[in-house]
Amino acid sequence: MKDIAREISARDSFTIACHINPDADTLGSALALSMALESIGKKTLVFSSDGVPGNYRFLPGCERIVSELPSDAPSTLILLDCNAPKRAALEDAEFGYSIVIDHHNTESDFGDLRHIVPTASSTGLLMHTLIAELGVKLTPDMATNIYTAMALDTGSFRYSNTDARTLRAASELVEAGADPGYIANKLYNSWSDGRFGLFKSYISSVEDHGRLRLGCITQQMLDQAGTAMNDTEHFVNYPLLVESVTISVLMKEHTGGTWRCSLRSKGVINVAGVAEALGGGGHKNAAGCTVHGTFEEVRAKLLELLEKV
Amino acid sequence: MKDIAREISARDSFTIACHINPDADTLGSALALSMALESIGKKTLVFSSDGVPGNYRFLPGCERIVSELPSDAPSTLILLDCNAPKRAALEDAEFGYSIVIDHHNTESDFGDLRHIVPTASSTGLLMHTLIAELGVKLTPDMATNIYTAMALDTGSFRYSNTDARTLRAASELVEAGADPGYIANKLYNSWSDGRFGLFKSYISSVEDHGRLRLGCITQQMLDQAGTAMNDTEHFVNYPLLVESVTISVLMKEHTGGTWRCSLRSKGVINVAGVAEALGGGGHKNAAGCTVHGTFEEVRAKLLELLEKV
Repeated sequence: MKDIAREISARDSFTIACHINPDADTLGSALALSMALESIGKKTLVFSSDGVPGNYRFLPGCERIVSELPSDAPSTLILLDCNAPKRAALEDAEFGYSIVIDHHNTESDFGDLRHIVPTASSTGLLMHTLIAELGVKLTPDMATNIYTAMALDTGSFRYSNTDARTLRAASELVEAGADPGYIANKLYNSWSDGRFGLFKSYISSVEDHGRLRLGCITQQMLDQAGTAMNDTEHFVNYPLLVESVTISVLMKEHTGGTWRCSLRSKGVINVAGVAEALGGGGHKNAAGCTVHGTFEEVRAKLLELLEKV
Repeated sequence: MKDIAREISARDSFTIACHINPDADTLGSALALSMALESIGKKTLVFSSDGVPGNYRFLPGCERIVSELPSDAPSTLILLDCNAPKRAALEDAEFGYSIVIDHHNTESDFGDLRHIVPTASSTGLLMHTLIAELGVKLTPDMATNIYTAMALDTGSFRYSNTDARTLRAASELVEAGADPGYIANKLYNSWSDGRFGLFKSYISSVEDHGRLRLGCITQQMLDQAGTAMNDTEHFVNYPLLVESVTISVLMKEHTGGTWRCSLRSKGVINVAGVAEALGGGGHKNAAGCTVHGTFEEVRAKLLELLEKV
């Protein structure tokens, strides 16, 4: 990270870019770095092509983020939490010099200077190191952004990527002014009333098929809860809390007898093949497909295929 | 803590007692302390009148815990994570000397030597300090027990009691061999089938009183789900996922028209006073009490008192 700190110190202005469909790791990292650089007299522009989702608007300084790249954007790019320009919707932009800081596996060899550490729990953790290397003292706002970034990518220190270094950094960030309870509240306890109502209906809809659980969200359930389909995020993961459950399916009713089906699995169980067989796709543990038919027809199809997994 | 370390060093054998309805903070603290003391040649007996609930049987060394106090139990008592003998079902036992280590508000002046720190996030954190004062090097088993204790009482570092000191200790425990991902899986993703069934019933029982939500677990619900009351842990926190909800109450039906009530709140809202007014106690954001009456009577009492909070 020393070479990156040196290169940054030698330059004056930066475009700091977040990945598409941004999360708290990319946004918090970008905001903290922007604040740190401005505190030592640099100019920064923070770019997120998808803006800032509502649930992350508590991040200090997020109002400085732009979703359109201006023609006079600084020509030194710092790409954060991804390592290919297209992941930041920047495949058509040109920069004079580019720095990449990421903790994902390499997708491309883009970048004049690269710091890609797949063993790091988050890009936020890398920002914590970089800001120290730059000799900048953490402000409470920087600390809040980095802590949130780290918290999101480790499930608030519950995932297996949580290590001693991450917890030590978290401790330093709290000393610098990050508030763990406030941040966790914003990340996890910000459901709307409607979402909770919908969750009640979803949970009672979950059918027990042994190691497989299947639930649904119908248009009627949405109407009753007074909310929309995007309020179903993460619901499908709840049945997987049960130790013996390895597959969870959520059937979401869209208009015209169409069901968008989310398939989730644990460990070695691979549901991507079933999604593909039904015209969808995805990864081993998280896949999806859209199927036409009545609830009973689609359910029967899914159960038949998933039985063989 | 230095005086406690000194007193312990001067004595040979100890009865280490957990509180009734034991959680990972009292069990993990007791096990870690027992292991630390035995590593320096002391004898220990670990007592938990309610044994070890199934979900905590992963705690290293938990098989050493006894639920009946033998007549030849060591006469030096160390009472952990509570500060009144009755909280450990020891009101009728006699000890020659007693040490109390706790982070709850004082319920009694019991104990020859007392270390009660309500600002500490967990008794596990106090154990971390005590074991260091005793000059004992942490083993992976001690670290796992203390980390689990701290994780439980801070919601894995999500609650507002999470501070820099707790995170620094967590970091040291991971260095000593605690595995955050493994522990979180054991604490949060190891539901039994019965627990999920009970969760379905609980979630549908939750009543909407605006900023307050009240749910219950009756004996009938337990019978239907084929499970026991200790499978309700954490349920009370779910309604707090809703941003506008600041108080969540869970009424658990015990035999003879008795309801054990768990009160949880967010931020500045303090529910300890209501629990105390009903003969119970606890912290600002997590308190409990036992109330006699019908469901309707107890609910009415709780709602009346909580309205003023």
